[in-house]
Amino acid sequence: MADYTFFTNPMSRGQIARWALHEAGADYDQVLVDWKNKPAALLSANAMAKVPTLVHHAEDRDRTISEAAAICLYLAEMHPEARLLPNDGEMADYYRWVFFAAGPIEQAITSRALKFEPGPEQEMMAGWGNFDRAIGAIEEKLAEDDWICGTRFTMGDVYVGSQIDWGMTFGLIPPLPSLVAYAERCQQRPAYQAAKGIDARLIDEMKK
Amino acid sequence: MADYTFFTNPMSRGQIARWALHEAGADYDQVLVDWKNKPAALLSANAMAKVPTLVHHAEDRDRTISEAAAICLYLAEMHPEARLLPNDGEMADYYRWVFFAAGPIEQAITSRALKFEPGPEQEMMAGWGNFDRAIGAIEEKLAEDDWICGTRFTMGDVYVGSQIDWGMTFGLIPPLPSLVAYAERCQQRPAYQAAKGIDARLIDEMKK
Repeated sequence: MADYTFFTNPMSRGQIARWALHEAGADYDQVLVDWKNKPAALLSANAMAKVPTLVHHAEDRDRTISEAAAICLYLAEMHPEARLLPNDGEMADYYRWVFFAAGPIEQAITSRALKFEPGPEQEMMAGWGNFDRAIGAIEEKLAEDDWICGTRFTMGDVYVGSQIDWGMTFGLIPPLPSLVAYAERCQQRPAYQAAKGIDARLIDEMKK
Repeated sequence: MADYTFFTNPMSRGQIARWALHEAGADYDQVLVDWKNKPAALLSANAMAKVPTLVHHAEDRDRTISEAAAICLYLAEMHPEARLLPNDGEMADYYRWVFFAAGPIEQAITSRALKFEPGPEQEMMAGWGNFDRAIGAIEEKLAEDDWICGTRFTMGDVYVGSQIDWGMTFGLIPPLPSLVAYAERCQQRPAYQAAKGIDARLIDEMKK
């Protein structure tokens, strides 16, 4: 048995977790999840049956982890040899921008996709303020730095890069120059190409 | 100068960060932020001028960190002597539930507060599914375990506990027995009481 069992669907946030698995050099078995017929092993690991869900067959016990960002950060910790963890001086940016992408950016994109945008009087309650402010903050950051921790790629870029890449692919994030350049840097990672290639082939097979 | 400068407003998610500062035993100076007249030091540290924002005056340089969950996790890392970090076997739950609270729970609560709930056909796009499923997942977890990592309080509980506590206080999360019991366990922490006491006094002064 591989170290990890990876429950995914190629047309889901599972693409983020697969990229993280390849960056970490993790050994995993894949279980494809059909939305209408979820496997019993997934339901027993995660009652919400969300994908991606990762089960780590650790020495002590099986550990279940879900939420794409959590899977990324966990894999970085479990595979320190991949050098994807932040050092002491990079840690503030690492957590700041991963949570910014998991919270405000995710909410800004989802709200726009669902056509549920807060009015001016509601912005105080909405943690992301409004769409333009949230996107503007990450755009400004990436105009200054190549990667979220500065000059070095970390696991945080797998998550933040996936959010930006996905948002621009679906037209939900405008193709601002610094965001396009960041997505292109991410796309040049060999692990990105390997992981996306697998999901692209699976999507092609589903269409046959 | 203290190790940290803490930009906050007592009626904000700054309450989460203050609890985290007290759990970590961190030495901080507070700067109160008036929504209508934001201090220049905050604007220069964080263009979005969100509160809470923390500036850590580290040996290498000043490090700025925002997003309440990120501040919690960062402080746990900077203060290992407070024993708020997860051990290896606790790490999957630590990241999983902190990101679950920062993503799906935050979105479920905000959507309900803003009266923007996805319809059945939109739930596939919304990472939180729907309100009842998201709240049900955390309710089920906390019916099984006292704390998100099992038997031991960690910094993850400062963030998850704050979300549950805040949501129930404002009537956005129903007072389910396991959630009420969890909030009560959080409220018994001396650092919770010290931090909330400071914010409560500040709110009283603002009302005078």
